[in-house]
Amino acid sequence: MAMGALRLPSLSLLRSPFQSLLSSPPSLTPRLRLRASTHLCSCCGGRGISARSLAREEVSPSAEQITSLRYEGSVTPRSVDFNAWYLDVIASAELADYGPVRGTMVIRPYGYAIWEAIQEYLNVKFKETGHSNMYFPQFIPYSFIEKEASHVEGFSPELALVTIGGGKELEEKLVVRPTSETIVNHMFTQWIQSYRDLPLMVNQWANVTRWEMRTKPFVRTLEFLWQEGHTAHATAEEAEKEALQMIDVYKKFAYEQAAIPVIAGRKSRLETFAGAARTYTIEAMMGDRKALQAGTSHNLGQNFSRAFGTQFTDENGQRQHVWQTSWAVSTRFVGGIIMSHGDDAGLMLPPRIAPIQVVIVPIWKTADDKSGVMDSVSLLKDLLHKAGIKVKVDDSEQKTPGWKFNFWEMKGVPLRIEVGPRDVANKSVVVSRRDVPGKPGKDFGISMEPSVLVPHLKSRLDDIQASLLERATLFRDSNIVDVNSYEELKEAIAQGKWARGPWSASDSEEQKVKEETGATIRCFPFEQPQGKMTCLMTGNPADEVAIFAKSY
Amino acid sequence: MAMGALRLPSLSLLRSPFQSLLSSPPSLTPRLRLRASTHLCSCCGGRGISARSLAREEVSPSAEQITSLRYEGSVTPRSVDFNAWYLDVIASAELADYGPVRGTMVIRPYGYAIWEAIQEYLNVKFKETGHSNMYFPQFIPYSFIEKEASHVEGFSPELALVTIGGGKELEEKLVVRPTSETIVNHMFTQWIQSYRDLPLMVNQWANVTRWEMRTKPFVRTLEFLWQEGHTAHATAEEAEKEALQMIDVYKKFAYEQAAIPVIAGRKSRLETFAGAARTYTIEAMMGDRKALQAGTSHNLGQNFSRAFGTQFTDENGQRQHVWQTSWAVSTRFVGGIIMSHGDDAGLMLPPRIAPIQVVIVPIWKTADDKSGVMDSVSLLKDLLHKAGIKVKVDDSEQKTPGWKFNFWEMKGVPLRIEVGPRDVANKSVVVSRRDVPGKPGKDFGISMEPSVLVPHLKSRLDDIQASLLERATLFRDSNIVDVNSYEELKEAIAQGKWARGPWSASDSEEQKVKEETGATIRCFPFEQPQGKMTCLMTGNPADEVAIFAKSY
Repeated sequence: MAMGALRLPSLSLLRSPFQSLLSSPPSLTPRLRLRASTHLCSCCGGRGISARSLAREEVSPSAEQITSLRYEGSVTPRSVDFNAWYLDVIASAELADYGPVRGTMVIRPYGYAIWEAIQEYLNVKFKETGHSNMYFPQFIPYSFIEKEASHVEGFSPELALVTIGGGKELEEKLVVRPTSETIVNHMFTQWIQSYRDLPLMVNQWANVTRWEMRTKPFVRTLEFLWQEGHTAHATAEEAEKEALQMIDVYKKFAYEQAAIPVIAGRKSRLETFAGAARTYTIEAMMGDRKALQAGTSHNLGQNFSRAFGTQFTDENGQRQHVWQTSWAVSTRFVGGIIMSHGDDAGLMLPPRIAPIQVVIVPIWKTADDKSGVMDSVSLLKDLLHKAGIKVKVDDSEQKTPGWKFNFWEMKGVPLRIEVGPRDVANKSVVVSRRDVPGKPGKDFGISMEPSVLVPHLKSRLDDIQASLLERATLFRDSNIVDVNSYEELKEAIAQGKWARGPWSASDSEEQKVKEETGATIRCFPFEQPQGKMTCLMTGNPADEVAIFAKSY
Repeated sequence: MAMGALRLPSLSLLRSPFQSLLSSPPSLTPRLRLRASTHLCSCCGGRGISARSLAREEVSPSAEQITSLRYEGSVTPRSVDFNAWYLDVIASAELADYGPVRGTMVIRPYGYAIWEAIQEYLNVKFKETGHSNMYFPQFIPYSFIEKEASHVEGFSPELALVTIGGGKELEEKLVVRPTSETIVNHMFTQWIQSYRDLPLMVNQWANVTRWEMRTKPFVRTLEFLWQEGHTAHATAEEAEKEALQMIDVYKKFAYEQAAIPVIAGRKSRLETFAGAARTYTIEAMMGDRKALQAGTSHNLGQNFSRAFGTQFTDENGQRQHVWQTSWAVSTRFVGGIIMSHGDDAGLMLPPRIAPIQVVIVPIWKTADDKSGVMDSVSLLKDLLHKAGIKVKVDDSEQKTPGWKFNFWEMKGVPLRIEVGPRDVANKSVVVSRRDVPGKPGKDFGISMEPSVLVPHLKSRLDDIQASLLERATLFRDSNIVDVNSYEELKEAIAQGKWARGPWSASDSEEQKVKEETGATIRCFPFEQPQGKMTCLMTGNPADEVAIFAKSY
């Protein structure tokens, strides 16, 4: 069985020039480049001027103003080079940096805040569905890994091993957990005696380590953060129901919070997790049309319980092996959010997971203006904060408003409020959407009156959330091609698209597709067409369609 | 410099028979012992009968009823053997279990929920005080650890080293982080350019590894969970202010949430963290009168910034080394909560950190009774849940009410509500306090009317919170002896108490006290007596008193 789900798959790896950066860890932080600048912002109340074009064309900060800035005014356009854009955005928006050890990543506050938004939502859902958090040690005796045959085959090439502790060579090497099924089963075996102890449903938020050779920030790193759920049940049916329930939790998160229209389905045998009976997945289409496996849920059957002897006494006094599941979402999802949304100017964050939902940029020329503007800004900030809106005021004096517009757009903040002297006089503000450039994305003269402004902002945030999902869905659907022959499949993949077609061929034929096209079966989607079908490869009857794509 | 604060000190280790258990990791879970039982509970509405005595003397579950129970009806009384009580409680209340690797611990849901309560409070306070969460990799190049002289001296005996990755011997050994100052400084050096980048204030929630030889669940484990704050400032004064601010956050948490009257103060030079200029600590008195270092905050001065070259350009264009702090609280605090409160019957959890604040035990004999009782219980549960009270209904049918009373008392749940047929008829309930045994701890005939019951419960929870703190404070104060000579100090320590006396002697004299009495200076408390003093050891003038105690 190939490596599948709980692990990040090592299939279809990108070979981009940026990845070679990782072999000798540099800083993702761009070198400081000082630039001469002459323009001062003149956009106080400058309605009708596109903030972005303004910032790009007219305004850049003076040399002394940017001594401590990392952002150089623009990122590589997404349309020019998707991977360069991705790495630029991660560096400029201060989402992450490379750690000193090859393939490791430092998650910086702005990137970590996105992970916290993921955690907050999922943690509540896990508890609502009856799971408790707990914590298993990260050091696993090497012998544990060897107990489940396909598990050791899948994971042994990627292990980090502790061989020295307290200055002494250890008798048994310790594995730094790549995933926890083995140690979980070792403990479950001690805690489960009777059917009354079932179901046992736990989750942990933890770091895991896999010695990946080709890494990419968030998408595949040597150490990453995740949650791993582990459950044990009395029947096969309950385990199956649980595995399906959890992939549904992930799917809802993707749609409702991350605005990513994932496709949920079942993995092929080749792509099933090392040790699982069945793996369910959510597959997301990135902006470059590569697939990202964004979350997985495994029905482990009795594979681990048989390997570890995890048994219970049933209601008839018979000893039985438990039926198990495991499911995980990792910091890879942050990479998925970055690569799903955004444009040439940078990030575009869905409001529900954005660390900052509204940025307020005060604008003034004279000291007199400043005091009135800052008073209004301060009131607005309190108002929004109390209304539960995540707000940030950028009142730094060494940057121009135009530079700030540009910067916060690059950081993907959904809404910007400009407050200049004219706004203070009119008791109104300009509200600009990140996702709609120029004048169409601006609401002018929105009253500062709380009963007007707060509902307006909330409604706009909802609009943006819906709009990002709609846009991503259109993009996804226009890039999935229905195919009925291998030729059609090859053509779709060659065009960088996803191919969906009837499939009932063998593992070796699936392997052939991978070798010849670089695409793998991402999943057999839960949503299936009706009617009789013919396998695109063999012409034999097929019960279901599969989706093929190149992937991260 | 000796090992100090951020690490768990290895001084004054207990040598109890229970620790030897750890060398070959057994299960903390007690063996199942079946007991014959004849009694059924007859306490429906049984006012005036002590639930505990009832449970202990009259009721025990029948053999077939307890097939899956771990709790054997009682724990070793705390007054008989404190350490046995501690380990019994951890096993019976399912707080933790031993991991398969020596010295590691599995934190089970009930224990982890206490840690989550700690996290929830502190996480908010950290953000309110301007810190952002982020994440640093756990693998640190070995060379980093060697850069700060006292740091390597302190930590090198305790390191776990990864020497093999992806099947190959690594060129440079990797340290599994014991603490993160070194990697933090490596990254800070890249992020900090100018005074405008300061202060830089971050925190991470993470696991850390220290190869401890003598371990004890929660108190000292090979791997543990903690938060570590790291900050960089432009001036020494700011760093000092920050270090003091964070020890104050910890102190408030201890008093207000954990009901532990810690003593905050400064560590002696000998006990200062390896690499710090000054270490502040909160010291807690456990039920056996040993001291537990429950949290520390370090003013690191420029020790790490000089070792790593972490510099900034100040407002005059001069390059300066940053001034730093670090501060940490770990899962050790859970051990501190267990050992601060409790009695012979088991745990006693302060309401503000209790995973369950109110347990409802339905009581019935006949099927007719059951339906009415369960309807009321269901309403009550919803009512309490909506009121923000953490409530649990124990409606399991294989255990008797008396067994349940006993069990939830052992688990330390602050309040219990009994609901029997008579209660349903009277529309009232009995509310029992965990901290006051017998009749004085019971409120009879409390109306089920929401406007009566909810305020009653909230008020009782507040009473218990205050009462636990008051009790612990009385205990602490009655076990601190003011001493003015070494003889008096020795006598106090020999009696198992803490000794507080004027101290201005040398490090070697401090070392002598440790060798001769087993006690160390826990801190120079912030609260100091007025007036001239004479060092208890040398007779020289002394500016301050120190507190000496044996410690975990």
